[in-house]
Amino acid sequence: MRKVKVAIIGAGTAGLTALGVVRKQTEDFVIINEGWYGTTCAKVGCMPSKVLIQIADDFDRLKKLSVEGIRGVENASVDTATAMQRVRKLRDAFVGNTVKFTDSLPAGKNLNGKAVFLSKNQLEVSLPDGTSEQIEAERIILATGSRPIMPTQWAQLGPQVVTSDNFFELESLPKRVAVIGLGVIGLELGQAMARLGLDVTGIEMADTIAGISDPSIKEKALQLMRHDMQVHLGVAAQLEKLDDIIRVSAGGQSYEVDLVLVAMGRRPNLDNIGLENIGVALDERGMPPMNPETMQIAGTDIYIAGDATGSKAILHEAADEGRIAITNALATLSEKPVGHYAARTPLAMAFTHPNIACFGARFSELEQSNTAVGEFDFNETGRPKVMQETEGLVRLYADKTTKKLLGGEMIAPRGEHLVHQLAWVMQLQTEVADILRLPFYHPNLEEGLRVALRSLAKQLYSPAEVELISK
Amino acid sequence: MRKVKVAIIGAGTAGLTALGVVRKQTEDFVIINEGWYGTTCAKVGCMPSKVLIQIADDFDRLKKLSVEGIRGVENASVDTATAMQRVRKLRDAFVGNTVKFTDSLPAGKNLNGKAVFLSKNQLEVSLPDGTSEQIEAERIILATGSRPIMPTQWAQLGPQVVTSDNFFELESLPKRVAVIGLGVIGLELGQAMARLGLDVTGIEMADTIAGISDPSIKEKALQLMRHDMQVHLGVAAQLEKLDDIIRVSAGGQSYEVDLVLVAMGRRPNLDNIGLENIGVALDERGMPPMNPETMQIAGTDIYIAGDATGSKAILHEAADEGRIAITNALATLSEKPVGHYAARTPLAMAFTHPNIACFGARFSELEQSNTAVGEFDFNETGRPKVMQETEGLVRLYADKTTKKLLGGEMIAPRGEHLVHQLAWVMQLQTEVADILRLPFYHPNLEEGLRVALRSLAKQLYSPAEVELISK
Repeated sequence: MRKVKVAIIGAGTAGLTALGVVRKQTEDFVIINEGWYGTTCAKVGCMPSKVLIQIADDFDRLKKLSVEGIRGVENASVDTATAMQRVRKLRDAFVGNTVKFTDSLPAGKNLNGKAVFLSKNQLEVSLPDGTSEQIEAERIILATGSRPIMPTQWAQLGPQVVTSDNFFELESLPKRVAVIGLGVIGLELGQAMARLGLDVTGIEMADTIAGISDPSIKEKALQLMRHDMQVHLGVAAQLEKLDDIIRVSAGGQSYEVDLVLVAMGRRPNLDNIGLENIGVALDERGMPPMNPETMQIAGTDIYIAGDATGSKAILHEAADEGRIAITNALATLSEKPVGHYAARTPLAMAFTHPNIACFGARFSELEQSNTAVGEFDFNETGRPKVMQETEGLVRLYADKTTKKLLGGEMIAPRGEHLVHQLAWVMQLQTEVADILRLPFYHPNLEEGLRVALRSLAKQLYSPAEVELISK
Repeated sequence: MRKVKVAIIGAGTAGLTALGVVRKQTEDFVIINEGWYGTTCAKVGCMPSKVLIQIADDFDRLKKLSVEGIRGVENASVDTATAMQRVRKLRDAFVGNTVKFTDSLPAGKNLNGKAVFLSKNQLEVSLPDGTSEQIEAERIILATGSRPIMPTQWAQLGPQVVTSDNFFELESLPKRVAVIGLGVIGLELGQAMARLGLDVTGIEMADTIAGISDPSIKEKALQLMRHDMQVHLGVAAQLEKLDDIIRVSAGGQSYEVDLVLVAMGRRPNLDNIGLENIGVALDERGMPPMNPETMQIAGTDIYIAGDATGSKAILHEAADEGRIAITNALATLSEKPVGHYAARTPLAMAFTHPNIACFGARFSELEQSNTAVGEFDFNETGRPKVMQETEGLVRLYADKTTKKLLGGEMIAPRGEHLVHQLAWVMQLQTEVADILRLPFYHPNLEEGLRVALRSLAKQLYSPAEVELISK
C-alpha cells in the first residue's frame, strides 16, 4: 500500500486550492479526481453561464436603443448555435486555466480515478484501466464537490432533459424551454434564454426565487422576471415524453416544450465513497460531523471543503475552505496550532438582469424588533434614468443598538458591485453614520445606497444627530 | 436697505444645499441667482454628458456583438439629432428637480439678478427689469459657481466654437470635431463623439489627459483613447474661421473641422462681483483668503462654497462645502461652536470608456521611497473576457509603514464602481491584509482589485505573514 502524507480527493476549486498550499510544503502528496477535470465553476457553472448571460444582456439591450437615436438594430436576431459555440470556446479557455495545476504534476501524483474509503486513513482508487491502487494517507482533504440533482425517472427521458452538467453542450437552443427549479442557476439560465428570445416557463416548488427572503425584494424580483419569462411558484413539475417534445405539468397547467433544464439544486458527492468506513456516525443526509471553523471531520484525519460540505456552491468560500482544511491538516502534522476559519461577510448573487444580490444576514434571519430597514428604489435618482435601468430595489438592514449593518437584499442594476461595497463596510464594522461620511460620486448608482442609508440614519439617530451627519 | 440674516448668492449645487439647511432654521434669508436656474451639473455638466456617453457606449458596444452570434446590427447608425434631443429631454427633467427648490420659495426670497458687494455685508442686486435692490446680510454664502474658459478672440468665431455651456444645445453633431483641452469634460465628450462615429481630434497643452499622473495609467489611457480619436499632447491650438469650417492649427499640423469644443477648464465666478469692496486682500488670481475647513473668508461674514472656491467641479464636494459654509455661518450667528469640514477621501472620475478614476493621493503626490505599488491588468482574469472588456489597468499605492492605502489611479471597465470600494476602505483606514480578508465574489471584476492588493501584500508583509493572509 502506497503511503503519503496528504491525499486530496477532488480537483475542483477546493481541492486545487489545497493543492496549491500543499505543494509549497511537501512533495509527499497525491491528488485523486474522478471523471472530467476542470472545476465546476469553470466547466459547468459560473463561467459558461456568465458568457450566455452576457450575450443575453447585449441582445436585450438593443430594445433600449431606439429612443437614443440608434437606428438599424430593430431586426436583430441571435444565432444561438454561434452563441453556444462562444460559450464553449471561452469555457474551454477557463477550464484550461484550472487543469494546468494537475496536468503539471509529476507522474503518479495525479490519479484520475474514483476514491473509496477503506478506513479513515486508507483509500482504494479505481483507475480507468480497470486496475486499482490502495493509498494510506496521514491526512485526507475531502473535496469531492457536488452534482446536480436529477430525479431518476427524468434521466430516462432522453437528451431533451438536461442539467447544467450538459446544458452547455447543446448545439443550439430550441424555441420552448421549461426550467424546473428557480434557484440561482435556474433563474440565471432561464432568464438568459428568455432574453435571447426563447419562450421560457419557470417552475419552482418553493415560494421564492434565487433564495430571496425579503418580501419586498421578492415581489420586485418576481415582477421583473415575469417581464421575460413565466414564473410559477409553489408547484411541483411532472414530465412526460411525447414524440419529439416534453410535456411539463405543474399546478394544473401543462406546457409543451422542446427542452427541460432541471435546476433543482446540487447534492454533495459523499455517497458511494465509503464514508461508512471512516468510523463516524453520519447524519440522516449521509453527512459526517464536521467543525465548520477547522473543516475537520470529528475523530478523523479527514478535512472536508467546498461543495462536498453541503454548503452553497460559492467559489470564494470553497477556496477559503480548501485553504483552511489543508492548513489545519498540515498544522496537525507538524504540531503547529490549528487555525480557525474567519468567514468573510456572506455574499450571494444571481447574475440575472437586474442582479439579485444579498449580503450578511437574510431578512428572514433578522430579529425584526431590533432591526431598522432602509430602502431605495432605482427610479428615484438620475443615473438609472440615463442608463434606462430604473427598475430595482435595495433594502438594507441595521441593528438598532449597534447602528451597524446586519445585511441586505436587492434586485439592482450593477448590484454585483453595490453588494460588494455594502458587504465590505459591514465586515469592517462601520456604523451607518460613518458610511454616510464616505464619498458617493455623482451621478453614480452608489448614490442610491446613500438614500437607503439616510433612511436608516433617520431611524437610528436623533434628529440633531442626523443633522450633524454629513448627508 | 433690506436686512436679512442670510443671503445666498448662487442657486447651484452649493447654494441650493445651503438653502436646504437655512430653511430649516430661519425664514429670514434671500437667495440671489444670476442668469439661468438649474445647477451646472444638471444643466450643462454631469447629467447631459452622461446621457450622450450612454448613447455612445450603447452604439459602440454593437461592434462586439458579432462574435456573440447577434446578427442584424452590422449597419446600425446614429441619428445624432434624436440623440441630442434625448440629451436635452433628460437634462430638462434633471434641471426641473433642481429649480423646484427656488421656484417654491415665497415671493421676494428668490431674486433673479446679479449681486455685487458694496461692502462685506452689503449687496446691490441688479434685477432684469432694470431696477436694483440693496440688501444687508448678517451672513453671506458666496456660491457663484464657475464658467467655462473661452479665449475672447475665439468667442468671436461664431456658433461653430462652443463650450459645454452651449454644446448640448446643438441640433445635431457634424462630421469633424476638434476638442481643445482634454481634461475630464473634453475627454468625456470628445471620446463620446468619436464613439458615435465622428472624426474627433483632441488637443491638450499639458502632457496628460483627465488629470492622470501615474505614467503607466497615462500610457494605457492614451493607447485606449487613441483607438477612438486623435490625441495631441503638449501643444497649443490656434483657430481660424474659413467660410463654413474652422481650421485648427496645433503642433505644426492643421485640421479642418465643423465644430470646436473648447474645454480648457472652468474659472470661478468671482470677477465683477465687487470682491474688492469686502476689505480683504485678493491673491493674484483674484481669490480671497479662505479657511478650507470652515469655508469662511478671513475677517468677514462671508462663507464661500462650490466651484467659486476654485476647486475641482465635483458635485458631492460642492454640496459638502455648501453645508459646512451655511452650518458655520448659522453657528456664528447663534454663538454655537464653529464646525470643521471633514473631507471625504478624494474621488475623481472621467466617464470615458473605460472609466478613468482616481482616489486618495495622486501618484505624483506620493513619497515614492515609502510607497508600494500593486497593479492589475484586466486581461488577467475571466470576467473581463466574458464582457469583452479586457482593456484596463489599476494601480494601487500603499504606505510601506502603515500598510494602508494611500490612493490609486485606474483606467478600468466599471471603474466608477471599483474606485468607490477602494476609496471607502481607504477612508476606513483598513490595512491591506484586512482588505484581502473581505469577500471578493467570483467571477466579478472586483477579483482584479484582489490581484493588485495581493501584489501590495507581498511588498508590505513577510512571506510567512502573506501565507497567513487569506488569499
